Order: sequence, then structure tokens, then C-alpha cells
Amino acid sequence: MSVILEFAMFPTDKGTSVSEYVSKIIKMIDASGVAYQLTPMGTIIETETIEEALGYMSSAYAILAPFSERVYSTATLDIRKGELGRLVGKVNSIRNKIGDIKT
Amino acid sequence: MSVILEFAMFPTDKGTSVSEYVSKIIKMIDASGVAYQLTPMGTIIETETIEEALGYMSSAYAILAPFSERVYSTATLDIRKGELGRLVGKVNSIRNKIGDIKT
Amino acid sequence: MSVILEFAMFPTDKGTSVSEYVSKIIKMIDASGVAYQLTPMGTIIETETIEEALGYMSSAYAILAPFSERVYSTATLDIRKGELGRLVGKVNSIRNKIGDIKT
Amino acid sequence: MSVILEFAMFPTDKGTSVSEYVSKIIKMIDASGVAYQLTPMGTIIETETIEEALGYMSSAYAILAPFSERVYSTATLDIRKGELGRLVGKVNSIRNKIGDIKT
Repeated sequence: MSVILEFAMFPTDKGTSVSEYVSKIIKMIDASGVAYQLTPMGTIIETETIEEALGYMSSAYAILAPFSERVYSTATLDIRKGELGRLVGKVNSIRNKIGDIKT
Repeated sequence: MSVILEFAMFPTDKGTSVSEYVSKIIKMIDASGVAYQLTPMGTIIETETIEEALGYMSSAYAILAPFSERVYSTATLDIRKGELGRLVGKVNSIRNKIGDIKT
Repeated sequence: MSVILEFAMFPTDKGTSVSEYVSKIIKMIDASGVAYQLTPMGTIIETETIEEALGYMSSAYAILAPFSERVYSTATLDIRKGELGRLVGKVNSIRNKIGDIKT
Repeated sequence: MSVILEFAMFPTDKGTSVSEYVSKIIKMIDASGVAYQLTPMGTIIETETIEEALGYMSSAYAILAPFSERVYSTATLDIRKGELGRLVGKVNSIRNKIGDIKT
């Protein structure tokens, strides 16, 4: 099974710039060894189960909790029976249908 | 701590109407005893930990998995240190600031 | 056509409590006459076109812009050809399938 | 001003694979000249106004409408006063804080 989870999570009581806090989460994800992609709006990971994917959100909150009274998070999940490898595969599927585009 | 989670989850391989599948999830949530509110766009629950809140998403997927090859889900979380009771409290806080509105 | 839009929008540079700012948005929506429902996690409106629905998000940002350097927003849309009335209809459709539940 | 919008939009009455429909939207975005990034979970664009950003969602729906009875969409917006260039800048800001990571 392939579970793709995109999520963003940030404190809402730390002013305009939250990259210091987001960095702590990305460090944890990077160190975990999970397949992931960092984007301008969040982090996308791929796991074999929904429990594992959502576990990264719990771990991310555990990192922010000591610093913040209030945390906001958004997530989207695309769960499909079948092989892993969709972090690359989904984008390639679109690109192949489009042909030669700039990105 | 008060964790408010709104989520929607539905199969994307079952055609236009998915209320049959969504109903199975709501039955599970209702039977669980967790505080929740059903809205036109999802279900909002309040729990004391993020693990408990996300556990309902895992349980929801377990309900849909036997029926569907592909499931999509969206979620937003508002986590605040302090007392439970924000399913009602957040809406009342806005209403009090607005005064007499129709809803 | 029935366009249901749920959205949340808030400044991220105003500290823990943002209900003062959210209230300004709800006042605008209430005064507009659009069908809407206020929930603990956002506002749900129903319109006949996507342009009209998204226009409320633009209007909401116009309200926050004078006060904030940075604004975050989330939205989900469910667009279906057919009659209006789904703010009530979608929830009732689930309730009818479930039978007697507490909410 | 820098408006970053991530959105996903897809028909829910077309079965498991929707890349054919998503491709039509990406073609439109690519042809428009707007700065964008295609990810496994959506498309991220950067514009100078919220109206322009949301206009791409309206255009995307106009592309899907002839093919589908029901369309679902999710979006997140990060609006910040200041310079454009945050599609690259936000990710670099995180990377600089983390140091040498693999992605």
C-alpha cells in the first residue's frame, strides 16, 4: 500500500516567521529515513500504512509542544492499494500526459 | 489540552455519491463516545491528545479499506493547551464578538 | 449548481487568540446574505458559482490585510451540478443513513 | 505582496485514476506563465494578489466542468507582504536552518 501524506504544522503564537520551528520538524523527518519531499507549503511523505504516516504528525507536535501554546496543522492524504514509489510516480504520470513542459 | 480535528475521508473510486461510505465512519465516531460535530464538509472531533484524534482517522480508513482501492482525506488541527470544551467555545467566542447574527 | 466552500483564514502574527479578526470576516459574510454555517474550524458557505464562493475569500483577505503582515488560509470545495440546499442536505443524507444518532 | 497558493482539484466521479483530468489543469497553468511547482499532492503557484491566485482555481474548474458532475478541491494559502520569490525562498530558508540534509 502507498500512503502519501502532505502536512504543514506551525505554532500560531510565534509571530510572522516560523521557519525556526518548521526546521525542527524537518530535521526529525530527515533523520527518520522516511521518503519525503519538502515543498513551499509543507512536507510530503510516503509510507506503507496510515498509522505510520500519521505518527509523523504526532512526532511533529511533540517537537513543537514545549515551545508553543497553540499549534495549527493541515493535512491531505492519498491512500492507494499497490506499490510504493508514488512521490515520484504521481508527478511523472502528469508530466507524461502533458509532454514537454518547463517544470 | 484541547485537540480539535476536522477531517473528511472518502473513496474516490465509488462515483458521485459517497454518503453510504461516510455514514459508516460517522457511525463509528458516534459509537465511540468522543465529542463530535457533523458538518456539510466533514466531521469535527475534540480530544485530549493528538494521538487520540489521529487514531480516529486510522479507524476511519480501516472502515473504508475493504471497499475501496483509493481513499482521499483532508484534515485540519487546532491544538491548544488548556481546557476541553472548544467545540462549543470557539463558535461562541466569535458570536459574542459579533453580537446578534442570524446563525 | 451547488458550490460548497469551507474556509478558515487568520493572521499568523497576532498571537494565540485570533477571534477578534475572525469575527470581522464573519460579520462580512453574515451581512452579505449568503447561506453559511459557522463551525469550530471555519465557515461553510453555499453559492451557485465557484467565482462567487472564492470571492468571499478575497473579501475576507481584504478585511485582514490592514491588520496583518501574514495571513494563512485553508479551503475545501465540493462542487456538484444540481440544486442548491446542500448545507442542510448533505448532513441530512448522512443522518438518514445512520438512523438515530445523538447529534 | 507574495501570495502562495497550493491547490488540488479533481473529479470524484471518474474512478481511481484522475491524472488525465489533472493534466488538463496543469497544461493551463503551464501555458499561463505563472510561477508554479507541481508536487505529488497538488500544484503550488505564486502570484501578487489573492484574486489572481484564486482565479487559477476558477479556471481549473472551468476545465473540469464539462467532464464531471462532481469536483472536489483543497487549497492552502500563505499570503505575506513583501517580495515575490518565495516558491524557492521558503524551502531555502528551511534548508539553511537545517544544514546539510539529503533532499
